Amino acid sequence: ARPRVGYFYKENHEPSALLVRLRQLRVGDFKSIPAAIRPNISNYDAIVTMFTQNVGSLIVVSEEHELLGMISRKDLLKAALGKTDLQQVPVGVIMTRMPNIIMTMSDEPVLEAAKKLMQHQIDTLPVVETFIDEHGDERYEVVGRFTKTNVTKILVQIGTLGQ
Amino acid sequence: ARPRVGYFYKENHEPSALLVRLRQLRVGDFKSIPAAIRPNISNYDAIVTMFTQNVGSLIVVSEEHELLGMISRKDLLKAALGKTDLQQVPVGVIMTRMPNIIMTMSDEPVLEAAKKLMQHQIDTLPVVETFIDEHGDERYEVVGRFTKTNVTKILVQIGTLGQ
Repeated sequence: ARPRVGYFYKENHEPSALLVRLRQLRVGDFKSIPAAIRPNISNYDAIVTMFTQNVGSLIVVSEEHELLGMISRKDLLKAALGKTDLQQVPVGVIMTRMPNIIMTMSDEPVLEAAKKLMQHQIDTLPVVETFIDEHGDERYEVVGRFTKTNVTKILVQIGTLGQ
Repeated sequence: ARPRVGYFYKENHEPSALLVRLRQLRVGDFKSIPAAIRPNISNYDAIVTMFTQNVGSLIVVSEEHELLGMISRKDLLKAALGKTDLQQVPVGVIMTRMPNIIMTMSDEPVLEAAKKLMQHQIDTLPVVETFIDEHGDERYEVVGRFTKTNVTKILVQIGTLGQ
């Protein structure tokens, strides 16, 4: 069931105007508001937050909106299956932690972000801006999220051009 | 954070060749193998199946591959939060049931399927073929699944044309 190739003719000469424009689209123009939580909230409350915000992943941030980690429905289901007390154990214990987070930035082409989603088999990329902390280390401030839902919206938007 | 309009010029005249081809793409050419389970398995085993197959939703089918329902990570998390005994309660009790399932077919344009994913805020559409049962009623056989991951792959494939 892998997608076959050959549904599009090769663009041998000039790429079409539409393709040029597609390649110019940036994450910042399509990103969503970040669904963020603090690492000390319980896994139970994280699940409730996912339901109320209707998202599949939450971005875990510090008080200063610094990216600390990510937690997905899959992580929380795994915790629910195991012996984890969802009410007692905080999100910070089971989250995927920096530096193991795949990120994007507002000026990244949406095509590159879409490739990251595919390659790493994830649904959500945090959109970050870099800053330098007091020790001279690079850190990441969360400014949004970019998901397969955003990508789906883009394809629909392209497909309905002029309709 | 809604996507703004105006990133593409209006296609006032002939739609570009690329756009014409995009509108011709069919679900059947991009669908994935269905991740299907029977309604009598436990919710616990459904979660394990989700992990081993690395999918976010499972399609619930009869012995004859007839579509009976769908179950998502969200449904299972909700069950885990509540008082449901995941080991004892079968998937058939908590699944979303026919006729409340949004479906697609192999000959549907991928753009229409992508719109359904957006409009209904779901990640997975079962791909079905219709058949008529012994009572003359229309029923649905599951032949695949179509997800936001498939849509993301399509956008990446278009974007890398000729590269």
